Amino acid sequence: MTDNPSYSVRPGKGAGATVGVALLGLGTVGAEVLRLLEVRGDEFAARVGGRLEVRGVAVSDLSRPREGVDRELLTDDALSLVQRDDIDLVIEVIGGIDYPRQVVLAALNAGKSVVTANKALIAAHSAELSEAAENSGVDLFFEAAVAAAIPVVGPLLRSLAGDKVNAVMGIVNGTTNFILDAMYNRGASYDEMLAEATELGYAEADPTADVDGYDAASKAAILASLAFHTRVSSDDVHTEGIRSITTDDIAAAKAANSTIKLLAICERLKDAETGEESVSARVYPALVPVSHPLASVSESYNAIFVEAESAGGLMFYGNGAGGGPTASAVLGDVVAVSRNIVLGGRGPGESTYAALPIADFGSINTRYHVDMEVQDRVGVLAEVANAFSQHDVSIRTVRQEGLHDGARLVVITHMAKEEDLKRTVDTLKELEAVKSIRSVIRMES
Amino acid sequence: MTDNPSYSVRPGKGAGATVGVALLGLGTVGAEVLRLLEVRGDEFAARVGGRLEVRGVAVSDLSRPREGVDRELLTDDALSLVQRDDIDLVIEVIGGIDYPRQVVLAALNAGKSVVTANKALIAAHSAELSEAAENSGVDLFFEAAVAAAIPVVGPLLRSLAGDKVNAVMGIVNGTTNFILDAMYNRGASYDEMLAEATELGYAEADPTADVDGYDAASKAAILASLAFHTRVSSDDVHTEGIRSITTDDIAAAKAANSTIKLLAICERLKDAETGEESVSARVYPALVPVSHPLASVSESYNAIFVEAESAGGLMFYGNGAGGGPTASAVLGDVVAVSRNIVLGGRGPGESTYAALPIADFGSINTRYHVDMEVQDRVGVLAEVANAFSQHDVSIRTVRQEGLHDGARLVVITHMAKEEDLKRTVDTLKELEAVKSIRSVIRMES
Repeated sequence: MTDNPSYSVRPGKGAGATVGVALLGLGTVGAEVLRLLEVRGDEFAARVGGRLEVRGVAVSDLSRPREGVDRELLTDDALSLVQRDDIDLVIEVIGGIDYPRQVVLAALNAGKSVVTANKALIAAHSAELSEAAENSGVDLFFEAAVAAAIPVVGPLLRSLAGDKVNAVMGIVNGTTNFILDAMYNRGASYDEMLAEATELGYAEADPTADVDGYDAASKAAILASLAFHTRVSSDDVHTEGIRSITTDDIAAAKAANSTIKLLAICERLKDAETGEESVSARVYPALVPVSHPLASVSESYNAIFVEAESAGGLMFYGNGAGGGPTASAVLGDVVAVSRNIVLGGRGPGESTYAALPIADFGSINTRYHVDMEVQDRVGVLAEVANAFSQHDVSIRTVRQEGLHDGARLVVITHMAKEEDLKRTVDTLKELEAVKSIRSVIRMES
Repeated sequence: MTDNPSYSVRPGKGAGATVGVALLGLGTVGAEVLRLLEVRGDEFAARVGGRLEVRGVAVSDLSRPREGVDRELLTDDALSLVQRDDIDLVIEVIGGIDYPRQVVLAALNAGKSVVTANKALIAAHSAELSEAAENSGVDLFFEAAVAAAIPVVGPLLRSLAGDKVNAVMGIVNGTTNFILDAMYNRGASYDEMLAEATELGYAEADPTADVDGYDAASKAAILASLAFHTRVSSDDVHTEGIRSITTDDIAAAKAANSTIKLLAICERLKDAETGEESVSARVYPALVPVSHPLASVSESYNAIFVEAESAGGLMFYGNGAGGGPTASAVLGDVVAVSRNIVLGGRGPGESTYAALPIADFGSINTRYHVDMEVQDRVGVLAEVANAFSQHDVSIRTVRQEGLHDGARLVVITHMAKEEDLKRTVDTLKELEAVKSIRSVIRMES
């Protein structure tokens, strides 16, 4: 048992003490956090045991007008602000990785507790940041980093701390869910829907983080770390985005009575022979049966399933993005951390004692939907079926339909190993009978 | 700002210290908690920062065989056990009110932290118990008291501590949900399904607490207290059970494209003129549209919706009863409390600073489904409609069908005040045109 969590704790400032707050970033979330710290000030004071006072707000551009913000508070020197003696708590809602990493590290090293909504930062630098928090005996909280106001970090860290979590699966990116949802319901193409998502403000000007799955991968890394008490960084997450999803894929999903969702999946695996455990975290678009609760998660909503040994299956659902929901999660952490600053004590931090190995993606088991264009002649089905069986992939259903020139064959497999399926597809590609592999999509249920 | 929460905190025993545990009760939940404290001992030690050691188990009958339990640990003197110097943490899973109250109070007064799954105890005696915990600077945790392993106490206490919760609504009693579900799906009567629920072990030999809504009322009281930072006890909860639900009511629900669920509803109300806030907590069977997520919560599952100002709508779903799920919630609290015992600090406790008044049940607004047998003659509809309008109850839909002798009239209202609807029903009863009021059921959506 190494890497025990958060054993050093600072004494509290004492009931009635004021908590000095530094806010980094004044975008949508930052402005809402600042507004609510004012509006809900009395409530927070009663919940914390002392008042919260915003003593500095770091922004990148001092010249921009900021309505309703005391200009005396503004600074463009975040690094100095977080180290000031009158600051106890730093709220980081800048975004990005390198700059906030530098500032958050400085804050933690200076003995300031930190609340952040920055999933990319936590997923990439949890080890370094947690160590700094531990050394200073302060809190580093990040409920808002996953699914905004849907409590999932807290439940995994605390409510399920007495249980053994075996899987976490969910829809954790609203932008891609909006796009896939619209493609499914309106028959539009990926490009059309991405343009609309950008116009509506759901997608960033550079949508890479969303549509290529990196945002979801950061969240998967955080969820897997918490669930399995093992350090999982975004580099450990097998990540595929939704750029390649076509209207044909959507039609195939409909034919299979399913929809397509970008899923984040975190799983505890157990070797059948040795009993040794490992961890898998992955993000990819997958077919989900329309009867599955995840299928009806629409637009920018998020839903997360947790499967634990004693608790059984749990689901958390809500709005996973936006200024209000993100501010709610940030402020929940702010109240908890402030309480610790005033009264002493410390929340549970990173816990990596289990240190399970990351499973090879090729060893993952799931089901597959393989959509092929084949020759329309005697013996084709046998050849195709043989390609599956020679790689130990068992076929569950086959559907064949005529095309104008040839035939279309859709195979749905039983649970099979990722690497076996990959070899199967390589073999299929070499068959003369197979004119093209239209798509290979995983199926989850 | 009075009644501030949990301001006194004891110092920790120090990292590596052992936490002495007393377990009260060895029924389904108690036995599972004991088993898991053993099986997951290493995990818990890593999460807590020190080992947990069960040093005594209180049971009512020492002579009963207890397989796999060290007999040296057993005692029938819970009161002495909880006050022993080597006990730091008391887990109460006895059930009942008066006896556990006495024992839990003694434990808290002796400076022991307490984890309980006892909803009736918390709902009835939260004030007294919280005061004792506060005086001793220890934790009193009760996540398992509401919806077993579904994290809802924690999210309300912590994750949503930065938000303003406006409503909590849900299905929080598995027994009644099983009965109503079976009545709906199988067309069986209440008595038949109660008998089956008893046989399957879902319902107790004396089902009063479940079917008359008292169990749900305890949970509603706890949820309302946490959500609104106001002391709400079970006496403050308007409570109606499901005994009076007939197969006719179920048929009427189906005709209205709805199902019937026993709901716990906690609401923050605001006077339109004065702006003054109050709180309502109530439990009653209500029609829920089949399209509503709560309609598909089946068997012993629980689901809880939370509506908060910034977070928007959140839903929590899972198995709300049983040994495993309840043990999961108890042990989550045990880990958190043990962490505080070892490292110092204290979780948020009762918070009643808002002290909002409890709204009069008559002032509550909802919609109603009124099912009447009326005379089949000219003018009846006008007379009935007049009875509604004279009490300011606006009609949304009317459905009339012929009966063998007379006619049946089903009126669904717009939002109306409980007391106005009650007066309307009184007036309807006096009308010669109305032969009988078959049922009045509220509708929620």
